[in-house]
Amino acid sequence: MTGPDGATAGSATADGVEAAMRRALAASVAAHGRTSPNPSVGCVVLDTAGEVAGVGATAPPGGPHAEVTALREAGDRAAGGTAVVTLEPCAHHGRTPPCTDAVLAAGIAVVHVALRDPHPAAAGGVERLRAAGVEVTVGTLADEVSAGPLRGWLHRQRTGRPHVTWKLAATLDGRIAAADGSSRWITGEAAREGVHALRARMDAIVAGTGTVLADDPALTARRPDGTLAEHQPLRVVVGRRDVPTGAALAADDVLHVRTHDPDEVLDALAARDVVDVLLEGGPVLAGAFVAAGRVDRVLAYLAPALLGSGSTALGDAGVGTISDIVRLHVDGVHRVGADVLVDARPERTGTPTTSQASG
Amino acid sequence: MTGPDGATAGSATADGVEAAMRRALAASVAAHGRTSPNPSVGCVVLDTAGEVAGVGATAPPGGPHAEVTALREAGDRAAGGTAVVTLEPCAHHGRTPPCTDAVLAAGIAVVHVALRDPHPAAAGGVERLRAAGVEVTVGTLADEVSAGPLRGWLHRQRTGRPHVTWKLAATLDGRIAAADGSSRWITGEAAREGVHALRARMDAIVAGTGTVLADDPALTARRPDGTLAEHQPLRVVVGRRDVPTGAALAADDVLHVRTHDPDEVLDALAARDVVDVLLEGGPVLAGAFVAAGRVDRVLAYLAPALLGSGSTALGDAGVGTISDIVRLHVDGVHRVGADVLVDARPERTGTPTTSQASG
Repeated sequence: MTGPDGATAGSATADGVEAAMRRALAASVAAHGRTSPNPSVGCVVLDTAGEVAGVGATAPPGGPHAEVTALREAGDRAAGGTAVVTLEPCAHHGRTPPCTDAVLAAGIAVVHVALRDPHPAAAGGVERLRAAGVEVTVGTLADEVSAGPLRGWLHRQRTGRPHVTWKLAATLDGRIAAADGSSRWITGEAAREGVHALRARMDAIVAGTGTVLADDPALTARRPDGTLAEHQPLRVVVGRRDVPTGAALAADDVLHVRTHDPDEVLDALAARDVVDVLLEGGPVLAGAFVAAGRVDRVLAYLAPALLGSGSTALGDAGVGTISDIVRLHVDGVHRVGADVLVDARPERTGTPTTSQASG
Repeated sequence: MTGPDGATAGSATADGVEAAMRRALAASVAAHGRTSPNPSVGCVVLDTAGEVAGVGATAPPGGPHAEVTALREAGDRAAGGTAVVTLEPCAHHGRTPPCTDAVLAAGIAVVHVALRDPHPAAAGGVERLRAAGVEVTVGTLADEVSAGPLRGWLHRQRTGRPHVTWKLAATLDGRIAAADGSSRWITGEAAREGVHALRARMDAIVAGTGTVLADDPALTARRPDGTLAEHQPLRVVVGRRDVPTGAALAADDVLHVRTHDPDEVLDALAARDVVDVLLEGGPVLAGAFVAAGRVDRVLAYLAPALLGSGSTALGDAGVGTISDIVRLHVDGVHRVGADVLVDARPERTGTPTTSQASG
């Protein structure tokens, strides 16, 4: 059988390689949120019979990379086997030795990579492996992988900026609160649980001072039982006003960026190794990010409900006439409990796979 | 085989009966918009071998009912056969003789009905057929049928009021126009074609004077090639202001109802035999209908786009605080071109099938 670029795939069938890539992707999803600034990578090692011998995902910074963990688990079964990995194995010495060394030392015969590493210092892993006689294919499930935990990291590699997801929870008529400011709850329990799970995969959550003053949010990631999730993102308040004493966000571990400029916010976050940012409330801050072209993903939880008055989800975004409308591309529409989730990205961004799939 | 209520189904298999009911429903969809105040009914006649021998749908008022057309097409093949019909055949003399007479005269042995007729004068068809020795089942595809062309008619039978569908075309942040009032186009071509097809199935289209003054809409149903559809709904302007001379709606065939009270509007339409009303623009009128509980279906075409300012889809609907939010039930979410269509109904309405399916 042949791989995506036509090379013989060794001991595993094409279906087996895809199944292994899905498993590697799932392993990287579970690690997402704890690896930044490193990418959340997944790896599956198949033995010569095509059976799964080891699974690994990127550990927090300083810990082993996905390939090393998967190879350790596989042990002797890795020899002559296949490694399936979401990102090209690194060929450079960072805080850990190059993964290509570990792959070669284990005697892996074939490597299937979803995406090449756009990072100049890390790239070259494919060439190094090939030079050592390992058969390498690139491109297995590239689209799925690039839409997964690597999405923010790939964005940061391309642009130098953290990846911003704007989450809104609104009625079908675009309201995030009733006329008197009350807003609990517009969306249902399933949507709110989804938001908490999303927070747990983020490096930082950002809210404006207006939202802090109006809603006193905690911006924590909680499990359905109300306990704190293991990983808590950096909590960030943006705006010139002070956070009132006694507010949930009046805490030492909260970063307060006193600016209205999205790029200043993103610079401050990039300096703290933030890759994935969740922008939550309110309309003024969201408007500033949309106007600056600094929203990379829109997750709109729409409740099947009507209010007719009250705050709108998005404030002034610098659009005065219809020809300046900010067009999005819909990546997916999902039912979440009684609500509808629209997952979209600005059209200007394009799909992040384009440059990768050709690598 | 047995029908939904346990009776033996005669010559047709259960699958064959369902397939015939789907075809009857499709025939009634094609007739929808030209039958009011009569219900748009579909009928399929199967011969003794279970083959389709005739298909019919309700003709415009004064013309033959669905059963009569289907039986005529079937001719002698109807004898001993099966009639599959979306609504209980009428047993009364209206502008046409009772359909039950036609069914009996044709020698039909089995009748499968989706829904009973809630109209007191028309009901009793099932009993009359059974008394004459015809086997009758009720309930085949009742949910699908009651969500189809009969929906508005059933609503009017239950409430005495026309059925109101509120259509909105908004951005993901709930805007129907940019800050300068420009709005062409927010949704894409597929959505706009869908709206024209929807108009062609309606008895009346309603817009407020504010929309007339702002957008000068024609409220016509057009085919994709721009020509007028065969059926044009009654065009209705609501509000106290005059329609300006020269406006597209300054025409003799336009009904102008000078009130802000939705019930006065619906009374005026009911007096004109209107069953299905499409409410299109603007936010003030929609707010009045929502506040009065007179919106029975919401069709929200949501464009994946952001504006951040400009008119909102829904104006004041009398909701001041979150506990008064108007909750909807989502019947379906569809991708229409690049846009997302949310098909919903107010929770208070319940599903129209509940009382019917037990009939």
